[in-house]
Amino acid sequence: MPQITTETKGVFVIAVTPFTDTMAVDTASVDSMVDFYYDKGADGLTILGMMGEAPKLTQSEALDITRQTLMRSGDKPVVVGVSAPGLAAIEELTKAVMDMGAAGVMVAPPGSLKTDDQIFTYYQNVVDTIGTDVPVVLQDFPLVTGIHISSSLLGRIVEAMPSIVMLKHEDWPGLAKISDIRNAEAKGRRRLSVLCGNGGVFLPEEMERGADGAMTGFAFPEMMVDVVRLAGNGEMERAQDIFDAYLPLVRYEQQPGLGLAVRKHTLAKRGAIASATQRRPGAMLAPKAIAEVERLIARQTRKLEALA
Amino acid sequence: MPQITTETKGVFVIAVTPFTDTMAVDTASVDSMVDFYYDKGADGLTILGMMGEAPKLTQSEALDITRQTLMRSGDKPVVVGVSAPGLAAIEELTKAVMDMGAAGVMVAPPGSLKTDDQIFTYYQNVVDTIGTDVPVVLQDFPLVTGIHISSSLLGRIVEAMPSIVMLKHEDWPGLAKISDIRNAEAKGRRRLSVLCGNGGVFLPEEMERGADGAMTGFAFPEMMVDVVRLAGNGEMERAQDIFDAYLPLVRYEQQPGLGLAVRKHTLAKRGAIASATQRRPGAMLAPKAIAEVERLIARQTRKLEALA
Amino acid sequence: MPQITTETKGVFVIAVTPFTDTMAVDTASVDSMVDFYYDKGADGLTILGMMGEAPKLTQSEALDITRQTLMRSGDKPVVVGVSAPGLAAIEELTKAVMDMGAAGVMVAPPGSLKTDDQIFTYYQNVVDTIGTDVPVVLQDFPLVTGIHISSSLLGRIVEAMPSIVMLKHEDWPGLAKISDIRNAEAKGRRRLSVLCGNGGVFLPEEMERGADGAMTGFAFPEMMVDVVRLAGNGEMERAQDIFDAYLPLVRYEQQPGLGLAVRKHTLAKRGAIASATQRRPGAMLAPKAIAEVERLIARQTRKLEALA
Amino acid sequence: MPQITTETKGVFVIAVTPFTDTMAVDTASVDSMVDFYYDKGADGLTILGMMGEAPKLTQSEALDITRQTLMRSGDKPVVVGVSAPGLAAIEELTKAVMDMGAAGVMVAPPGSLKTDDQIFTYYQNVVDTIGTDVPVVLQDFPLVTGIHISSSLLGRIVEAMPSIVMLKHEDWPGLAKISDIRNAEAKGRRRLSVLCGNGGVFLPEEMERGADGAMTGFAFPEMMVDVVRLAGNGEMERAQDIFDAYLPLVRYEQQPGLGLAVRKHTLAKRGAIASATQRRPGAMLAPKAIAEVERLIARQTRKLEALA
Repeated sequence: MPQITTETKGVFVIAVTPFTDTMAVDTASVDSMVDFYYDKGADGLTILGMMGEAPKLTQSEALDITRQTLMRSGDKPVVVGVSAPGLAAIEELTKAVMDMGAAGVMVAPPGSLKTDDQIFTYYQNVVDTIGTDVPVVLQDFPLVTGIHISSSLLGRIVEAMPSIVMLKHEDWPGLAKISDIRNAEAKGRRRLSVLCGNGGVFLPEEMERGADGAMTGFAFPEMMVDVVRLAGNGEMERAQDIFDAYLPLVRYEQQPGLGLAVRKHTLAKRGAIASATQRRPGAMLAPKAIAEVERLIARQTRKLEALA
Repeated sequence: MPQITTETKGVFVIAVTPFTDTMAVDTASVDSMVDFYYDKGADGLTILGMMGEAPKLTQSEALDITRQTLMRSGDKPVVVGVSAPGLAAIEELTKAVMDMGAAGVMVAPPGSLKTDDQIFTYYQNVVDTIGTDVPVVLQDFPLVTGIHISSSLLGRIVEAMPSIVMLKHEDWPGLAKISDIRNAEAKGRRRLSVLCGNGGVFLPEEMERGADGAMTGFAFPEMMVDVVRLAGNGEMERAQDIFDAYLPLVRYEQQPGLGLAVRKHTLAKRGAIASATQRRPGAMLAPKAIAEVERLIARQTRKLEALA
Repeated sequence: MPQITTETKGVFVIAVTPFTDTMAVDTASVDSMVDFYYDKGADGLTILGMMGEAPKLTQSEALDITRQTLMRSGDKPVVVGVSAPGLAAIEELTKAVMDMGAAGVMVAPPGSLKTDDQIFTYYQNVVDTIGTDVPVVLQDFPLVTGIHISSSLLGRIVEAMPSIVMLKHEDWPGLAKISDIRNAEAKGRRRLSVLCGNGGVFLPEEMERGADGAMTGFAFPEMMVDVVRLAGNGEMERAQDIFDAYLPLVRYEQQPGLGLAVRKHTLAKRGAIASATQRRPGAMLAPKAIAEVERLIARQTRKLEALA
Repeated sequence: MPQITTETKGVFVIAVTPFTDTMAVDTASVDSMVDFYYDKGADGLTILGMMGEAPKLTQSEALDITRQTLMRSGDKPVVVGVSAPGLAAIEELTKAVMDMGAAGVMVAPPGSLKTDDQIFTYYQNVVDTIGTDVPVVLQDFPLVTGIHISSSLLGRIVEAMPSIVMLKHEDWPGLAKISDIRNAEAKGRRRLSVLCGNGGVFLPEEMERGADGAMTGFAFPEMMVDVVRLAGNGEMERAQDIFDAYLPLVRYEQQPGLGLAVRKHTLAKRGAIASATQRRPGAMLAPKAIAEVERLIARQTRKLEALA
């Protein structure tokens, strides 16, 4: 059971949580979705993400999904989101999923933190609580958490807490932060794995700035796989060509709140999951929105064929 | 096992969660604390409050404390806070505590809600999810939740959702809201029980505006009991005299974040719990703060003696 | 001097404020920029926008720029942003710019508003203060203001305040809001002109949903002009083809805070203004960012040539 | 014309802005109010405070009030609030009021700042823009600004910017911050004058922690004058006795938003100003609220007589 490290690279897809039309967890779709992601080239998965539907699960459902995903993933690494309102829940969930073989845990800062010092102390408390042997992904997503982590604060955290091995980078704008990280490392700071989120909407630039890959849930993971691979080979123009073909849909899927409905619709259409159903509260995709998605996918298909 | 209704009146103390010096749940102190609150005149208790240390408990600890508190409370009503990031957890916890005999559940709105319509829909979802037979306390605490509920929105909620029987009132300023509620009821809207929070810092005025009592955790619950009783008898000057004697400490205890440390210190000093220990993250009471609290309590004692 | 109405359609470019290298207002560039925007097909301009550099101007500078822009615009309509911390400043600025011949004023809600009722009352106060004969653009930009206006609240405002003739639409996600507006109008609500912002990143879908055009500042205004014209003619595939060619740069320019630097860099490169200088506080464009912009513009040029 | 320094001590009253019943600036009341404050023992005044009605004034009204207040204050120091959305307005207003003889300017951080580094840079920009010869009061009022300044960040600012000579302290809880400041000074950091706000609700404890006085607008400034003087003499019990007599009204006046109406009502009742009128938007004091204030003042009078 592999664990993530400061050297981890590639594409970790943020998995959705499939439900049946009656809102039960759709265990058959968990398997088909996991297979789908790896078929498309994913290097690993991230489940129970803060933005996904983790809060809509009971604790036992969350653990069952984790167990099933790990089993189905074989030797591929699976990161598990453990963000929770309190340290006790984070500790309990972390212990459970690491015992099952998770590759690490992801923690976003709670919105109640006010100052750099409070954010620093929060992560210190997390690391002290779950144990410094557990690899941690720091999720830096100010649009949703409301918590802004400056490059200098991130540096303090990186220096003080070696078990934080990875940044899920989704600050916006965030390109300068990647450059800041790599510049600090060039001057001797220890390495941090940087996988980028935000639906991949800046992935070409992020790779050029020194990111190690993507950790996000765009419903065409092959886009991330291609861009990361091509960028790794230095084929930036080709990477951007591929990216541009997907960009209209990436942009559409990145609408806050609505994006999950778009993503599930697309995954269902592609056969990865059986149903686009969300548990409450969940934005329904209006007929006009479905038509917009369908039009974008049709155009995307034509563009990709032209590029092939 | 009594349940709260729209007619509920009196003082419900927000209970702390006692821990031992090694940060385990202190079950002996749970019993002594429950006894202490009722000895001082509480009509009921509220546990697992959002502002307390509920998020620092594992789910099984939370259920154990609920069971013990209900057992020890006998036929006194106990409201249980079930605020959580998602409806699944709220549903699971509500079912468990109502089966144990809770008098109702308390739900605060999550900070991610943006508009009146979203707040309305949130409570509609909660009520639909847990079932309309469960009495609900709406916790209106914008200072902490960031969610502001206007009188007109509260009216929409009250009219649409009969199972919301009580308001834990801690808007600030909030006196006009109580008047608005009672004015609307005078014009025919159905009744809402209104118990006031904020450490009791406006309790005399709140009672005069038509509140039904207090639901807050000031470490001298006898203040709330006396003020509510005297106000109920129309003895407002005497109520205010008593209140004024406690006010310097009420004010001190109401410091956001720090208040819980003051409260636990005082409860430990009074013998209600064995230790003022908090689980992380918890503000430590500095020696200067302890001296300030001690001075305020000494002065309070002298003033109360003069009033006796 | 034309005024905006509920029937206004087309492209209003949000103008930047040009400064010289020594941070004085660059009056020569004001003229060249105004000419540039109209040369590219703009139907009107919007100046002193909240997101621009209006707060970096003294009051007399703001009035001078308004006067000059109006003069240079001839009979083209110019909307002036008058958002300010208080009604007195809004009243004073509105009177001044309307006397000069502005086509209307734009007002964003201050971030201190908490509830639907407070937002409603705010706009009622604005309209009462400046006079109901002044056409008002309501700027709905929650990402920056923090104020979320639901479709139902917008409806209340539209019904109560006829002088609010236009919505600068930049909620995100915001497509459903356009549909909601047009649906309500189909049922009899009075018309509202809807011009869309957010750098144009959803312009094709917005036009299909019933928007009247764009009001945003992307440094290639010809994109908005083409997309709005083609969409008006029902040529949606062609509109989307044009849009897609610009999208990588639209996306890049839409980075909060950084976007203005990208926009000024591009406008200076295109000769619209002499210098990309910003007054403090202003994000500098790092060399890597300049290289990214240059690469995106080069790719954009090639794509547009292929489409010609 | 005296200026504030790092050694400034005493009571600076935050002045209201008096309006006539027709909402014009009431210049006669400006004089009577200034006299009233000094009669009650104020050492200086602060005008155009962020929380007052400064944003309801036009720029020329603001300058007229400043000129009149400075004239009437003779050789007493007057601090002028210059918080504004942009540096240009801050610079312009600062130059104007310092030329008139202001003792210094007060600047609160804008709510758009996100990180410690951004807050630091903001004050650096302010100081650079207005000139390092202008004494600055840093207003630290997170409840209203939303900006939280930790003790460590405050230390960085103090060390880097000598012209910031005073802290208007109204963090809440904020007692530890005063201790932190004095402890750092004991270890060699340069001195900072600390005047406390929040309506004076923690003034005894603040003085004991090392504050230099008060800067707030409670309508009985003699309370602040007495408490600061007695605390300075080491007569803490007497200081607290006086304080306790006023505390019920202090608490009532400290209701956010509503407090200004209470304050103006009381000042009008005491003859300091002719009318309690506020410009829009301004909370009206309901008849019930007026009755509550009257009752609290009557009780306060009796208590003070008993203490005399």
